[in-house]
Amino acid sequence: MSADSKSGLQLRSLIKKSGELEISLQNVPTPEPSADEVVVRVEATPINPSDLGLLVGAADMSTAKASGTKEAPVITAKVPDAAMRAMAGRLDQSMPVGNEGAGVVVKTGSSDAAKALMGKTVSMIGGAMYAQYRTIKVSDCMELPAGTTAAEGASWFVNPFTALGMTETMRREGHKALVHTAAASNLGQMLNRICLKDGIGLVNIVRKAAQAEILQKIGAKYVVDSSSPTFMDDLTNALAETGATIAFDAIGGGKLAGQILTCMEAAINRDAKAYSRYGSNVHKQVYIYGMLDPGPTELYRSFGMTWGVGGWLLFPFLMKISGDDRKRLRERVANELKTTFASHYTQVVSLQEALQLSNLAVYGKRATGEKFLINPNKI
Amino acid sequence: MSADSKSGLQLRSLIKKSGELEISLQNVPTPEPSADEVVVRVEATPINPSDLGLLVGAADMSTAKASGTKEAPVITAKVPDAAMRAMAGRLDQSMPVGNEGAGVVVKTGSSDAAKALMGKTVSMIGGAMYAQYRTIKVSDCMELPAGTTAAEGASWFVNPFTALGMTETMRREGHKALVHTAAASNLGQMLNRICLKDGIGLVNIVRKAAQAEILQKIGAKYVVDSSSPTFMDDLTNALAETGATIAFDAIGGGKLAGQILTCMEAAINRDAKAYSRYGSNVHKQVYIYGMLDPGPTELYRSFGMTWGVGGWLLFPFLMKISGDDRKRLRERVANELKTTFASHYTQVVSLQEALQLSNLAVYGKRATGEKFLINPNKI
Repeated sequence: MSADSKSGLQLRSLIKKSGELEISLQNVPTPEPSADEVVVRVEATPINPSDLGLLVGAADMSTAKASGTKEAPVITAKVPDAAMRAMAGRLDQSMPVGNEGAGVVVKTGSSDAAKALMGKTVSMIGGAMYAQYRTIKVSDCMELPAGTTAAEGASWFVNPFTALGMTETMRREGHKALVHTAAASNLGQMLNRICLKDGIGLVNIVRKAAQAEILQKIGAKYVVDSSSPTFMDDLTNALAETGATIAFDAIGGGKLAGQILTCMEAAINRDAKAYSRYGSNVHKQVYIYGMLDPGPTELYRSFGMTWGVGGWLLFPFLMKISGDDRKRLRERVANELKTTFASHYTQVVSLQEALQLSNLAVYGKRATGEKFLINPNKI
Repeated sequence: MSADSKSGLQLRSLIKKSGELEISLQNVPTPEPSADEVVVRVEATPINPSDLGLLVGAADMSTAKASGTKEAPVITAKVPDAAMRAMAGRLDQSMPVGNEGAGVVVKTGSSDAAKALMGKTVSMIGGAMYAQYRTIKVSDCMELPAGTTAAEGASWFVNPFTALGMTETMRREGHKALVHTAAASNLGQMLNRICLKDGIGLVNIVRKAAQAEILQKIGAKYVVDSSSPTFMDDLTNALAETGATIAFDAIGGGKLAGQILTCMEAAINRDAKAYSRYGSNVHKQVYIYGMLDPGPTELYRSFGMTWGVGGWLLFPFLMKISGDDRKRLRERVANELKTTFASHYTQVVSLQEALQLSNLAVYGKRATGEKFLINPNKI
């Protein structure tokens, strides 16, 4: 380990009992690796929507203020009183952030598996990635194929495994095609590439015509726009053609989840022979995996009695499948990192730049088409 | 078969394309029984909430009008335009009504099983029970124990199997206690008797203090009133004490399903050691099995990501379990028909009386404490 890797900057998010969010950079010592660990110099770590939950919590970012110095900027913002109850579990704890990342192994523990990674570029999962150095278990690393950069491998986990988790869940629960909302996102584009490659019917729901174009350009067959006056009919037609009876919804709030169930039921009943006052007996499922709209989910239950809505999370899914299945998914991601699972970034920033109000305002919006990559060792 | 059982009155519900509901009595020939069938003179058949869906459909009963004669009354009412779409599958089809009932076998088919029932009092399931005679398969009948009347056996299926289906579903899905809403109903009281007998924790949610009293009188331990200002705290306490993580909700619309999930999550997190921004990893489930409130279900998702809300129906549940399990449940119901599974009626009416506007106004409200039994052969 080079002398200067003994400590490094780490981004921290703190919500105080007083109701103030504080995001700052702290110089922390790099833990010595145990036998099965390595120290990685982090060179690329994305800002995913799933990171923002921990980074800004329930704070109202329209109240955000910058202070500190250029080298050690500090962001503060107010958490609304009504939202403090949900933050109870993390109050007054300074928390590291960043689910996934990639970088170069600069020191290793004594095991053969650890030593074999010395000098290699690896992808990592496990939190605390918004930092210059990360001491981490070998089993939480994946060695990248030769010729793959840290930036190319940084988003190897959250989006690829989430997208694969959707098609795997679809199969395991007996559905033959699926629906995805907020579908023009990086994740949504990835899901389209998987479905095109694997021959799976995918109905993309977007909120703007421009987002529909993004998907049509990459070959998406079914794209429906929820802002269109013909949305319900368009969606029902696409559902009837694909036979999709499961949806993954990133939005959560509002009427969309219920509208999807209503259109699924209408598509199924196009072929109904007899009246059933309880609706069709085909199970219709919407999994909510994000909360772009934190408002209430409103279900107008005009879709019979054979339906479910629920939360879906990547990690419980990965715990549920077998070790062989996890290995299969991991190998697929490694092999298709530059094609199916490629991510696109609009900006690469340092840790300090990530804490500039002007940047926070952009990535904090979770807007489709804007994706930031942090290089904590950017000079 | 006596000469007068060759035909009999049958109640019919018809929704016309014009948007008019018409309920009437028709004289229909009694079908001859095939080898494995019997003809039953129906003497008792309850009006369950689950029958009202077919009986009145989506009609606005405040517009109901009576016509016809005393012997052949006719009820008409208007179906609101907005609700006609959901009625599309049954338009212009005259439909018989009545899920379950009991009566005396007056003629049989040629099989031994059918012949063995001659003269016996049997319970039946299968629809079209609001009729003087019902030709039905032996397998859809259950011979009642000696000394049990048709009135005592009439509600043998829908409420008993629904209540047992709830505790069975609780066990099968890995929960140890359960929640029930609209809990003072006939079904709710039955569920309390099952849970007291089987030692299962049951949290009863009622909407009025008077309903709480009904349950306390029969020994219910946990009763919380959703109209109380301390409802959320009361519910959370009861959930923490019982460990209930599954609920069966008869109401459907409004905030209640989400409130139950919120309180479950709060009860679980009382023992939480570390903050998880995705909430607890304990699965929390609400099954909606009725629609006392047909309005939208509003889920304020302040209960993490490990949750589900869905429809629950008795028949798909019974199809899912094994034949042995069905037999076990059926034997239990037969043995405990006068105790655990006893139903109480506030009125016994003839078919003609069931079509009096004054009676319709009472049972149409689905109010707790009012339950009608029809005796189609009442003189």
